[in-house]
Amino acid sequence: MTQSTLQLLRPASYIAGRWHANADGQTLIDAVYGRPVAVISSEGVDFAGALAYGRRQGAAIRKLTFHTRARALRALGTYLMERKEAYYGLSMLTGATRRDSWVDIEGGIGTLFSYSSVARRELPDERFWPDGKVERLGREGTFVGRHLLVPREGVAVQINAFNFPVWGMLEKLAPAFIGGMPTLVKPAPQTAYVTERVVRDIIESGLLPEGALQLVTGEPGDLLDHLEEQDTVAFTGSAATAAKLRVHPVIVNRNVSFNTEADSLNASVLGLSVRPEDPEFALYVREVAREITGKAGQKCTAIRRAIVPAHLIEAVTEGLRRELGKVTMGDPARDDVRMGALVSTQQRERVRETLRQLQAEARIVITNETPLLGGDPEKGAFLEPTVLLCESPLTARGPHELEAFGPVATLLPYETLDDAAELARMGRGSLAGSIITHDRAEATELVMGMASTHGRLLVLNRENAKENTGHGSPLPQLNHGGPGRAGGGSELGGLSAVRHHMNRVAVQADPTTLTALTREYVVGGAVREDVVHPFRKSFDEIQVGDSLLTHRRTVTEADIVNFAGLTGDHFYAHVDEIGAKGGIFGKRVAHGYFLISAAAGQFVSPAPGPVLANYGLENLRFVEPVGIGDTIRTRLTCKRRIRKELRPGETRPTGVVEWHAEITNQHEQLVATYDILTLAERARDEFDPPAAEA
Amino acid sequence: MTQSTLQLLRPASYIAGRWHANADGQTLIDAVYGRPVAVISSEGVDFAGALAYGRRQGAAIRKLTFHTRARALRALGTYLMERKEAYYGLSMLTGATRRDSWVDIEGGIGTLFSYSSVARRELPDERFWPDGKVERLGREGTFVGRHLLVPREGVAVQINAFNFPVWGMLEKLAPAFIGGMPTLVKPAPQTAYVTERVVRDIIESGLLPEGALQLVTGEPGDLLDHLEEQDTVAFTGSAATAAKLRVHPVIVNRNVSFNTEADSLNASVLGLSVRPEDPEFALYVREVAREITGKAGQKCTAIRRAIVPAHLIEAVTEGLRRELGKVTMGDPARDDVRMGALVSTQQRERVRETLRQLQAEARIVITNETPLLGGDPEKGAFLEPTVLLCESPLTARGPHELEAFGPVATLLPYETLDDAAELARMGRGSLAGSIITHDRAEATELVMGMASTHGRLLVLNRENAKENTGHGSPLPQLNHGGPGRAGGGSELGGLSAVRHHMNRVAVQADPTTLTALTREYVVGGAVREDVVHPFRKSFDEIQVGDSLLTHRRTVTEADIVNFAGLTGDHFYAHVDEIGAKGGIFGKRVAHGYFLISAAAGQFVSPAPGPVLANYGLENLRFVEPVGIGDTIRTRLTCKRRIRKELRPGETRPTGVVEWHAEITNQHEQLVATYDILTLAERARDEFDPPAAEA
Repeated sequence: MTQSTLQLLRPASYIAGRWHANADGQTLIDAVYGRPVAVISSEGVDFAGALAYGRRQGAAIRKLTFHTRARALRALGTYLMERKEAYYGLSMLTGATRRDSWVDIEGGIGTLFSYSSVARRELPDERFWPDGKVERLGREGTFVGRHLLVPREGVAVQINAFNFPVWGMLEKLAPAFIGGMPTLVKPAPQTAYVTERVVRDIIESGLLPEGALQLVTGEPGDLLDHLEEQDTVAFTGSAATAAKLRVHPVIVNRNVSFNTEADSLNASVLGLSVRPEDPEFALYVREVAREITGKAGQKCTAIRRAIVPAHLIEAVTEGLRRELGKVTMGDPARDDVRMGALVSTQQRERVRETLRQLQAEARIVITNETPLLGGDPEKGAFLEPTVLLCESPLTARGPHELEAFGPVATLLPYETLDDAAELARMGRGSLAGSIITHDRAEATELVMGMASTHGRLLVLNRENAKENTGHGSPLPQLNHGGPGRAGGGSELGGLSAVRHHMNRVAVQADPTTLTALTREYVVGGAVREDVVHPFRKSFDEIQVGDSLLTHRRTVTEADIVNFAGLTGDHFYAHVDEIGAKGGIFGKRVAHGYFLISAAAGQFVSPAPGPVLANYGLENLRFVEPVGIGDTIRTRLTCKRRIRKELRPGETRPTGVVEWHAEITNQHEQLVATYDILTLAERARDEFDPPAAEA
Repeated sequence: MTQSTLQLLRPASYIAGRWHANADGQTLIDAVYGRPVAVISSEGVDFAGALAYGRRQGAAIRKLTFHTRARALRALGTYLMERKEAYYGLSMLTGATRRDSWVDIEGGIGTLFSYSSVARRELPDERFWPDGKVERLGREGTFVGRHLLVPREGVAVQINAFNFPVWGMLEKLAPAFIGGMPTLVKPAPQTAYVTERVVRDIIESGLLPEGALQLVTGEPGDLLDHLEEQDTVAFTGSAATAAKLRVHPVIVNRNVSFNTEADSLNASVLGLSVRPEDPEFALYVREVAREITGKAGQKCTAIRRAIVPAHLIEAVTEGLRRELGKVTMGDPARDDVRMGALVSTQQRERVRETLRQLQAEARIVITNETPLLGGDPEKGAFLEPTVLLCESPLTARGPHELEAFGPVATLLPYETLDDAAELARMGRGSLAGSIITHDRAEATELVMGMASTHGRLLVLNRENAKENTGHGSPLPQLNHGGPGRAGGGSELGGLSAVRHHMNRVAVQADPTTLTALTREYVVGGAVREDVVHPFRKSFDEIQVGDSLLTHRRTVTEADIVNFAGLTGDHFYAHVDEIGAKGGIFGKRVAHGYFLISAAAGQFVSPAPGPVLANYGLENLRFVEPVGIGDTIRTRLTCKRRIRKELRPGETRPTGVVEWHAEITNQHEQLVATYDILTLAERARDEFDPPAAEA
């Protein structure tokens, strides 16, 4: 990257299956040298048409099962990863260093892999998601209920912030697509050309169904006026813009789901127990310095408030001065630059203005004015890292309210842990908080004091120093969002973000109908008994509801004695006549593990066959004790079938079959109930390789 | 109840721990004879003070564990049930029959029992709720994460509709209290005197901590202006009022959580396969008639649209005419009256106006003008049940948009199942829908066609006819709410409504700290080994992290042969050298059940002691096969402790101890992992009876 003129980009909108010719419009300026970099405009885009098109095309996504959608995301992740260098090149124009861009680009692509994996692991290979357990709604068991999640039949409109043009899109696209909704993404104008580059590759890949992704570069026009009840809006950006969008009459009157993730005044607390020589002290200083300078402080999760024991304020200030003194600023394309530019000179102006306001209640204690390594000092949007100190933070308002969205943080001294938590809560709702201490009681007290006002809390210490991902990094597995000032929304967190894109409906029916609806056997539903033993059927032949009622077996004293001898389990309730009389059963009873082992002896079909192995067991409850002379039998019923994809190296296609087992005694009383997980071979001719399905 | 003058009630507000002297204000009129029944006013109430008081008092609720809160709700339910006749007496003045009031009063008290029971069954006996599983966030296992739910530190403001003055309050109070939030309830003025009567008893009972419930009878004044970030608002009522409240600047700017349950145009579909002689036909007619007349049609879940195969329209109309012809209307205090009055003559005027509007696209086919049995025909708010027929429902708008909140429904004929589902969806979001058919394929098609726009769907047929609770009845276990027109919110549904009152925070830490924070052992965390065997400790002595590493055992061919002989499980993978060679393990391996039985033989302490029984097992996975000559050992670690209350008749206080077990082989490879549930005795001197805790 040099100071020479750039080829002017014309990032276009992608609407209703075609790229929209880009009229002249807003000119975007690069952050480092101040050169024109792109022109964007959404003039002429038919927003009503885009939404209607998305809703129609949604049907194609809803036809795919969760696993097919998940495999498409994984393939897309691989495809984009191969093309990442192009995104890095453009990202530098926004002022981001390679490390900053790594979070945006590879972090963003990582969410595709993460959602692909959680969906294949935890969702059925179906178009709907039976949620929670079956509720028995009547005494006789003829009336039962369960929740189902099904895709919303609308468009997921995503309005993103400028700071993460790639991650911001992909972290919202992934759960929306898994949930079965098409996306319409509206990136912030400043960095829309990076988003557009990635969208071009997604469209060219052909890996998502047509209509699964539309893009608006430029103004959103009358987009929101055309929203309908089944659409959703996910917004990332400032609290002020969120408040404006939230009251849009169409969003309000049609109850359009509106999810916000807004910047917040995030706090990091150094524990009261930490001494300057502890590893946690150095960890704290490094973490705060990294959060101030990473992405030039333009992260909605960045540390804005460093809450430090009063007696350590000087030591921490000294440490930060040393750390920040090492930070080199300039053209992020240069290897020797650690901190790039803000996104624009307007943004720098806004930060400077907020800095001035902050100085009403705080004073600057660190500012790093090292010479610039490349970049234009005026036309480039550079700003030196700055640390303030507020001496009376419990009575001050500015440090808890005014967000300088740049390399700025304020030190807040505290005396007691209660005060530290109170200071953290004064942000009135934050995305992320961190607590640096090795004292677990202290960590517990601070976590409990901060939990109601935070979306995520990191406890950092010597134990996890190496592996932790840092205060500011949202992870796909964990909630991202926060109450109050942070917007009151929730993103990521594995399947919980997928839920936002689905409607949860309670279904009430009789057990046989609920079995048919959910494709999971509901206790009390009709079963099918067959001359063929269920273990002799391939995965593709086994049907939910296939059932076997075994022969009976009388449990004898010899069984109990032999089982104790063989296993070494001589627990008094089984083998000690005197002890057992005083125990809760009042007599010797069979080992619970003997019962489930004998039940397997009843239902297993011994010769080689399609059922390969029992690899797990769930929900086991021993309901009634079995004494000497009691007679047991077992009913085994196919509860659920889960197709599995062939892993690399695997040659034998299989599926998971879950069986519900019930052991009863001679009085038809339930003795034990549990679910068994088995692996069953697929019928060769029934097996479609995953590629053909997708 | 006679026509005589009533003693004028002065239902007061209960604010900040005292009853508010009630100034003159709005006069409420009884629905049956039109007599003045009560005067309400909130003049002089300090709303800012009420909220501030509630927030302060919230701390007392948050100090109680979930189980203590649950026991308080159960005691409150019993207390109110003993006083129910007083509520029935007042409820009749609102126009409700005893059957209508049963839903409101005993249904409402039932939610207290239901939430008490779900909280004791599914939540820990703690002040926080560890949610979902532990996420491993790094390869080495030193960095892990989990979600915690903690109470919001605000007030749960509940604004209710007039139709269920008791249920509306209790169904919101129960999950709020379990979640740890104090309630401020604002009932609709028309029936506020019924709510107030119940609140008086709740306060007098002393069963909830002071401040757990405040009441505003009368106008809400500037209540909403004083909301803060940690408060919540739950609103039940019309979509128009919801839209007005939702955009309140304080709610918007402070991101106050706002949950709406609004009336909707609910549909009931008669299946295409049903013949007039089928039991489902009669069930349909009865269900529609019951929904039209129950609570005089003033239910937000009532059937407004009866979607019927075109060829059955005449038969259904005839059936409804017969059913509705039997309906007697009049003073609900009379035993021979089946349908009471609307809540007010103003309400009757609104319904009549909507009826007139509906007639633009539909015509009246049934109206039941039987003589009134008591009540004043003019001053009483009586309205005869009315059924309309819309001949072209796919093009009409009125029947899908205009809600006559009274005994009114419209018949909509259809030809195909697709059309039936489309008609149901044209309500643009409903609380409840029903499908009456015995054909499971038809039920599945209709459920899937209606699922995205409904909060609850009932499939009704001969199987569940006797036990089903009806189209219009929300149940505490199942979601109540719906997308779009229905408000986009969600109430009830067991613990999911408790979640609305809590903040979900992702906590990241090292395993030992996460163990300390959640009081559940996290794999990889530090364990404590002791000279005392963990099975020799009482429930009160056992600590999370207490661990035992057993002696080793070499698994021999004799073990496998003996186990097969004893259990009868001769599966080829264990006993057939030829078959096993071709199986997935390539050799004979030990039975999985042998491994967990032998592990018990390793860790059990045989003599009588505080650990009484192993009553369950969860999360068992067999990870690596164990062959002849392999040597196993087991680590047993205390994962979780759950105090149990003494049930009636129980004399031996116990607790549940959950143990995490890991079996490894001679290469330190994990062979099997699972969790064991045991019952352990409490130390006599440590045991506090539940009453003393609450």
